[in-house]
Amino acid sequence: MPNERHTLTALVDNEAGVLARVVGLFSGRGYNIESLTVGEVDAAERTSRITIVTSGPPQVIEQIEAQLKRLVPVHAVTNWTFATSGIEREMALARVSGKDRAAAKAEAAKFGARVLDDGGQATVFELTDASAKISSFIEAMRPRGLSDVSRTGVAAISRDPG
Amino acid sequence: MPNERHTLTALVDNEAGVLARVVGLFSGRGYNIESLTVGEVDAAERTSRITIVTSGPPQVIEQIEAQLKRLVPVHAVTNWTFATSGIEREMALARVSGKDRAAAKAEAAKFGARVLDDGGQATVFELTDASAKISSFIEAMRPRGLSDVSRTGVAAISRDPG
Repeated sequence: MPNERHTLTALVDNEAGVLARVVGLFSGRGYNIESLTVGEVDAAERTSRITIVTSGPPQVIEQIEAQLKRLVPVHAVTNWTFATSGIEREMALARVSGKDRAAAKAEAAKFGARVLDDGGQATVFELTDASAKISSFIEAMRPRGLSDVSRTGVAAISRDPG
Repeated sequence: MPNERHTLTALVDNEAGVLARVVGLFSGRGYNIESLTVGEVDAAERTSRITIVTSGPPQVIEQIEAQLKRLVPVHAVTNWTFATSGIEREMALARVSGKDRAAAKAEAAKFGARVLDDGGQATVFELTDASAKISSFIEAMRPRGLSDVSRTGVAAISRDPG
């Protein structure tokens, strides 16, 4: 079976060791995590959401989902790959260096990137979009003086009222 | 010594098991990871950047930094807490549900949030800002129909040309 790209979300208790156990489900099988984000959902309830993008054969992804659901601190697991209601977005910070950044700025504007900082020697852009668009933006900046990039990985949410 | 909030970045080889080892340095000491993001830096060189926000006494943070630097797949470690050149940003997706979302939309506009989806029963907002501002935005949405939130955690980059 061919590998498929999957975006999984787990709603978990925000306590030490939970992230290590979730990451261990993947690394124990030798499966790479392409992107991972952890952010607080509710400080009072001490819950966090872990979003993971990984690739693998469908059976292995199903096994990982089932094992995630059995972890005690995990409240819910969603696989967004088959959900038509999901919105997946990522943020990237990209720095372009050099004296002449006019071409980089013009190209970045086409992608809808925002200028966060514009100093004498470097410009820092911020872009939020789908992951594929973020990758295209970074490749477009590379020949135009790109000197660093920091991506958050994917965050997902449903457009259904819930 | 009081706990301090630290933002650490590690540039690593993008291979299975690296994330588990990095996370293990924290969970092995019982230290909570407040936020974590992993994103690709260069697909051809197979490098990723892991950004972690944690709190702890300065000596423990220094120990973790030193141990991170000794991991073979880790190329560089930066502690942004003491770097004046650092820009730290986070993205949040927030969904507000209900028939009347006018108050939520007006309040979200004050924070500079963007509307990603606006259906009959729910609106999905996207906001990028410093973490404290993201938290304020979410607290402002909570009494205005907030039904879900997904945060990426912090990404950091230097404004220096590099």
